[in-house]
This record gives sequence, C-alpha cells and structure tokens, in this order.
Amino acid sequence: MTTTLPHVVVVGGGFAGLAATRALRRTPVRITLVDRRNHHLFQPLLYQVATAALNPGDIAYPIRSVLRLQQNARTILARVTGFDLARRRVQLVDGELHYDHLLVATGATHSYFGKDEWEAWAPGLKTIEDALEIRRRVLSAFEAAERLRDPAELPAVLTFVVVGAGPTGVELAGALSEIGRLTVARDFRSFDPRTLRVVLVEGAGRVLPPYPERLSAAARAQLERLGVEVRTGTLVTRIDQTGVWFGQEHLQARTVLWAAGVAASPLGALLGAPLDRAGRVLVAPDLSVPGHPEVFVAGDLMHCEQDGVPVPGVAPAAIQAGRAAARNIAARVAGAPTRPFRYRDKGSLATIGRAKAVGQLGRLEVTGFLAWWIWWLVHIAYLIGFRNRLSVMIGWAWQYFAFARGARLITGRAWEPGRAAPKP
Amino acid sequence: MTTTLPHVVVVGGGFAGLAATRALRRTPVRITLVDRRNHHLFQPLLYQVATAALNPGDIAYPIRSVLRLQQNARTILARVTGFDLARRRVQLVDGELHYDHLLVATGATHSYFGKDEWEAWAPGLKTIEDALEIRRRVLSAFEAAERLRDPAELPAVLTFVVVGAGPTGVELAGALSEIGRLTVARDFRSFDPRTLRVVLVEGAGRVLPPYPERLSAAARAQLERLGVEVRTGTLVTRIDQTGVWFGQEHLQARTVLWAAGVAASPLGALLGAPLDRAGRVLVAPDLSVPGHPEVFVAGDLMHCEQDGVPVPGVAPAAIQAGRAAARNIAARVAGAPTRPFRYRDKGSLATIGRAKAVGQLGRLEVTGFLAWWIWWLVHIAYLIGFRNRLSVMIGWAWQYFAFARGARLITGRAWEPGRAAPKP
Repeated sequence: MTTTLPHVVVVGGGFAGLAATRALRRTPVRITLVDRRNHHLFQPLLYQVATAALNPGDIAYPIRSVLRLQQNARTILARVTGFDLARRRVQLVDGELHYDHLLVATGATHSYFGKDEWEAWAPGLKTIEDALEIRRRVLSAFEAAERLRDPAELPAVLTFVVVGAGPTGVELAGALSEIGRLTVARDFRSFDPRTLRVVLVEGAGRVLPPYPERLSAAARAQLERLGVEVRTGTLVTRIDQTGVWFGQEHLQARTVLWAAGVAASPLGALLGAPLDRAGRVLVAPDLSVPGHPEVFVAGDLMHCEQDGVPVPGVAPAAIQAGRAAARNIAARVAGAPTRPFRYRDKGSLATIGRAKAVGQLGRLEVTGFLAWWIWWLVHIAYLIGFRNRLSVMIGWAWQYFAFARGARLITGRAWEPGRAAPKP
Repeated sequence: MTTTLPHVVVVGGGFAGLAATRALRRTPVRITLVDRRNHHLFQPLLYQVATAALNPGDIAYPIRSVLRLQQNARTILARVTGFDLARRRVQLVDGELHYDHLLVATGATHSYFGKDEWEAWAPGLKTIEDALEIRRRVLSAFEAAERLRDPAELPAVLTFVVVGAGPTGVELAGALSEIGRLTVARDFRSFDPRTLRVVLVEGAGRVLPPYPERLSAAARAQLERLGVEVRTGTLVTRIDQTGVWFGQEHLQARTVLWAAGVAASPLGALLGAPLDRAGRVLVAPDLSVPGHPEVFVAGDLMHCEQDGVPVPGVAPAAIQAGRAAARNIAARVAGAPTRPFRYRDKGSLATIGRAKAVGQLGRLEVTGFLAWWIWWLVHIAYLIGFRNRLSVMIGWAWQYFAFARGARLITGRAWEPGRAAPKP
C-alpha cells in the first residue's frame, strides 16, 4: 500500500459504504472509511433491540473489525462536517481528508414532517440509542402501571401507539402486543398486562403500502389476530405528553413510537446537487453526482429512479448500490467507462410476530408461518460474518419456545414514578 | 395471599435481597421487593461488560421475572428516600410502604475517599451504565490513537491506569492488556495496539490483599506475564485530565479506572444505627439493627464480624446473609428465637485473564489454568436461572478460541477527536 495509489474516501459504514469498501478490496486504491460511530448496525433487526428480544451487541459490530484483514482500507472514527468538492476535500470536525474518489453513503434518519417537537413524545428508531430509549419507555410503562394509584389512569398507561405502518411500524406493533400478551403476562400483580392496547396508525389506506394489496390485507389480519388495533387512512395532527390527536379525536397514550417519515442525512445537501423532497441526492444513472464524476452517492441517501420508480430505501438496495458505486470507482481508476446501476429486487419480507409475516419473492406471495420462516433464514444468512448470529439464533429460539425476551433491561436514566410523561 | 399476613419489605434486589425473598417463598408472609432498577445484576461479571466481552443482557435479568412464579412476592420499581422506624414505614419518592419486617440490602458503591472530583476522570464499576462508560472510554482511546497527529501524545493515549488491585482491579487490568495485545491487535493502521501500557496501582504491599501471600505473588506473576505493570505500595495523590499523580511523580494517562474504595449505600445511615467507617451498619449477630428486632440488614451494607474479622463484601456472603435474615424473619413470624448468622467461607477466586486465575478453596490454593477453569465453572453455575448462561458460555468460548470480544460497541455520547479528556 503506497501513498501514490488513488485515495477513495467512503463516508458512512452502513450497508452501502461497507459493501463498497469490501468490493474495492482487490482494486489498486487506498480506502479510508469514515464514520462517526464505531459500529456497523444491522438495522433490519433494530426493532428487536427496541422490543427487548436482542442485545445491542447482537446486531452491531465494529467496522474496523469487519475490515481488519482488508489491507487497502483503514477506518477512522470522525464526524464529517462538509465537503470542498473543488479542492476534493472531506471536512472533518478536526481536520480534512483529500480524496481522488468519494462515496457518500450516510443514509437517512426519521423525519417528523416539520413537527420536530413531536420527537420528545414519539421517539423514532434509527440508532442503538433510539432502540434502548424505546425499550426503556415500553418497559417503564408496565412498571408505571404496576404502581398506579388511580385506576382511571391505567388505560392511558397501557396504550401504545405506533405511528406509521411500514415494515418497522408493523414489526414494532406486533412485538409490543406480544410483549404484553405473552412475555410479561404473568410478571405483574396489580394489573393484567394482557389488557394492553396497541394502536397502529397509518395515513395511507392500508398497512405496508408498498406491498401488493393481498399482502397488506394478510398483514392486517395477522396484526389483528395479535390484538393490534389497525387504523389506516388516519392522519396524526398532534402529539404531546397526553397522547395523539387525529383532528378532533384524542387518543390518550403514555407511549407513542414514531415509524413514519424518512429524511436523508443532512450531508447530502452539502454536495451541491439537486435533492428530492426527502433530501435525497438525485444521482446520475451511474450513481455519480451530476457535474462531479469523482463523487458517488449510494444507499438511503441516493434518489435513483428505475423504470420510473425510485429504488426503495432497503438494505438489499443499499448493498447493491454500494457495490455498483465501487465498480464504477474501479472503472474510473482503470480509465474505463462507468455503467448505470440496475437494482435487482429479490423480494421483500416483513415480519409481524411469532410465526407471522408476509413476503413477496419475485412473483410469489407468501404469508404466515412460511413467510416468517423465510424471513428468519434470510436474516440469519445476512448476519453471517457477525460472530453474533449464533447468539441471535439462540435468543430467537428461546423467544419462540418460551415466549420470553432475554434483554428486558431498563438502562440509562432510571424511571421515577410520578414522572409519567417522557421528557424531551 | 390475604392482606392479613405479615408484610415483609425487602429494599434492594441484589444478591442479598433476592436470596432473602426467594428463601421466604414458603413462609406465611406477603413480600414487597423494592428496587430503583428493574434488574438484578450479576456484579462479579460486570468487568466483562466493561471490557467488551459480554453484553449487558448477559449478566442482568429483570427482578420481576425472577419472582414471576413466587406468589407471595411482588416487585415494585421505586427509589427509597428514607425510613420511619417508629411508624414502620419505608418512604418512597412517591409514597410510602408499611412493613411488619424490613430487610435493607442496598449494597455499596465505590468511594473516592472524599476526593469525589476524581470520579469524572476515573470512573468506577458498579452499574451497567458504569460498565458501558468504561467500555466507551477504553475503546475510544484506541480510536483516538488511530487519529493522533502528534506522535508525542501516543504514550498518554495508550496508557491505562487501574487504581486498586482487589479482584475487580486485577480483572480489569488483565482484560485491558488482553484487549490491546490480542483482541484489537490487528485492527489499527497507524499504531500498534500491542504497545499499550496497563498500570495497576495498589496502596497495599501486594495485589489481592485479602488473599494468602502465595496467591498474591502468583497473581502478580500472571499479570506481569500479560504485560501489566504492577505498582504496589503506591498511593495516588491526585487524578485529573492529564493522568495520575503519586506525590511528585506524574503518570500521563488518558484513561484511568477506579477500583479502589467501597462506600456503603447512603440508606444505611438513615436507619439510626451505628456505622463503620465505610458507612456499613453494625448489625447484631442475627443481622437485625440494634433496638429494632424487626429491621434487618444484609449484604454489602452490613458490617458483621466473625471471629474478629468482618465478613467480606462478596456475593456468596451476601447470599448467605440474605438467607439468614430470611430465616430470622420467618422465626419472628413464628414466634421463635432468631439465630446468629454464620458465614461459611467456601473460598475465593479471582480471574486475571485467558486461562489465568488464582483461588483459595478451603485449604487448597490453586493458580493458573486450573484456577481459571474452576472460576469459569462456578460463575456458570451461579448464572443458572438466567437464560443468558448459554449466550455467556458461547461468548466466552468464542473469546477464548478466537481472542475476539463480541460486544465492542461504543454507545452513548459519540467520541469526538480533539476532546481527548473525559468530561465530568
């Protein structure tokens, strides 16, 4: 590894950034992967940390360990503050990095559609810390119910609202219902946890809007069998410490979780390229930034249309885009032409609860136990390379057979009775 | 369970409180266990969370799940603020509980011998949060080393000082050295983690002061084989952001960990009984508080002498004392006389690193691999009842064979370069 090789800087160690770095392992370049976190996060299973089924360490792994043996890559932990495209520099909080080729893959976070004050009452789920905060609130609600003096307050304390019925919202709602009805059902003395109420709210006309209608209907039926109240075509107009408003209607709820909007990482706006409404960068077909053939964007930060439809913000698309960007960087290093990115949709799966899921695999639609089993195999397969997959498998097997959740810790700020509402 | 049964309130769900509650399961009493945390913590393995070998969920378990099937016990999550012994009330942050019999088992925390300002620079290890903070600092030090511009700063960044060479200090120092020399040895590009320096400082003349001299010597030899610098008979006079002072001598170190003093829980002082210098309650031989035969103290909060020597603050002593207090509560319920507590010392074990440990089992002294193997079996056996023991076993087996540590996440406040010193 000499310093005369072209320098590729990859910003972001998520699915896209890591896939690109790995794909460049035999290309004659030096790679620097920059992330402000030390770990790669397997986000599709993050809701399982939030619902106390898995430990954080089960789904996150140090980026530098993933790249340990890749001699042409180094990892640095730093926050990127901007770009100087003219001078080909990435600006860090404490310095800058020169690049010959740049890949920006900093993903997306949740968006409150301009109502950022809702975040204090309805946390979203993007990081390990988010998941632990949601876990803390959910478990603390049951603890608060056990200590209530005024039984009139019980319904609000035991009402959990999930806003947004995409895959994350559906998974959260199903898991919450299972926690109350199965996991902690016998743990309390002064109330029956099975009386919890889980309300899943969706603005669109059905759950899992991007899925075929038949699967949406199957998912809804499975959710209702789990005791989840599904309210589609319902817009949230206000969220505060007392609960959720739908226009004039007020739903009292101590615990509200946000699984609705998505906003691209703010770094996308610093690339000087046109953005879509969610802040995603409108990339050229080869994933480069228009006017800057040496700068690429991949993953949830990119807006890339294919056959008139945007490529979805899911892990397989991010991995494929990361690899495509890497191929094009390698092509440019070799003086060859770049090629347009083609997303190959291998299907989608959403799990709902114990032995409940829906999925589309090519033209095949699956529901129920079969879908759940495929979901399980796919996620275990993806976790390969993580040492944690064995412990994940054991955790899941345990959960399935014993209805138990092994990671039911309330950590961080201790819960105090009398402070029923979450604080910002 | 009728409300006319005597009411036993147990404050604290550690080893003593939980053992007492379990021991009263067939006694005709109603039990309320109060804890401000929702989980029982297997503290002897907490250093493994701090050194990234285990997940928090591997060593902590919800108290109410442990007591799920014990029909005469309920668990409440609340902070105790005081006692009204005359009216037999436990005061909570949001109310009070009447008791007929009270067991206070709120344990101990670390003490800085009046130098509380040292805590910001030298965190101690008592809670899950402490462990995660130590993990964050240790892993962040390596990340800082990777990004250093001025190589003159490298020695301070790579120096880890552990103050106190009791079992926790010895375990931390050994594990830190193994992290640098084995686990992350190949993970960095701009420095060699094997050049880390771990300094274990002890005021007494030898490591593991309560152990026989031969074992102290063996432990020291094993630590030195792991590359730990052991400094006994050395008093720390100051700790700040630059490191540690021993009188005039200054040791530059970015990361300092505190494993020295122990102070009893402040609730002990609210019982109106005499205390020892560390704030422990001087209990009667039957573990009751003098003048209050209905109030008992057990575990690390009690000061109880046997053959002129205080019973040590270790988990087996806490379990035995909890059970003895329960027997005496049952005796009082039955109108029978109480009996004095007798601590049966089954031995002590301290682990130092991979296949390294020392132990005393009755008159048998063991060192090295045999001691480590016994330590491992004992800790697995204690974890029985936790579903997590399988995952712990896998974690350890992995660590042993692959020199890897599976829980190497930096969570919480992200590390920023340029902020080399920890903040209060």
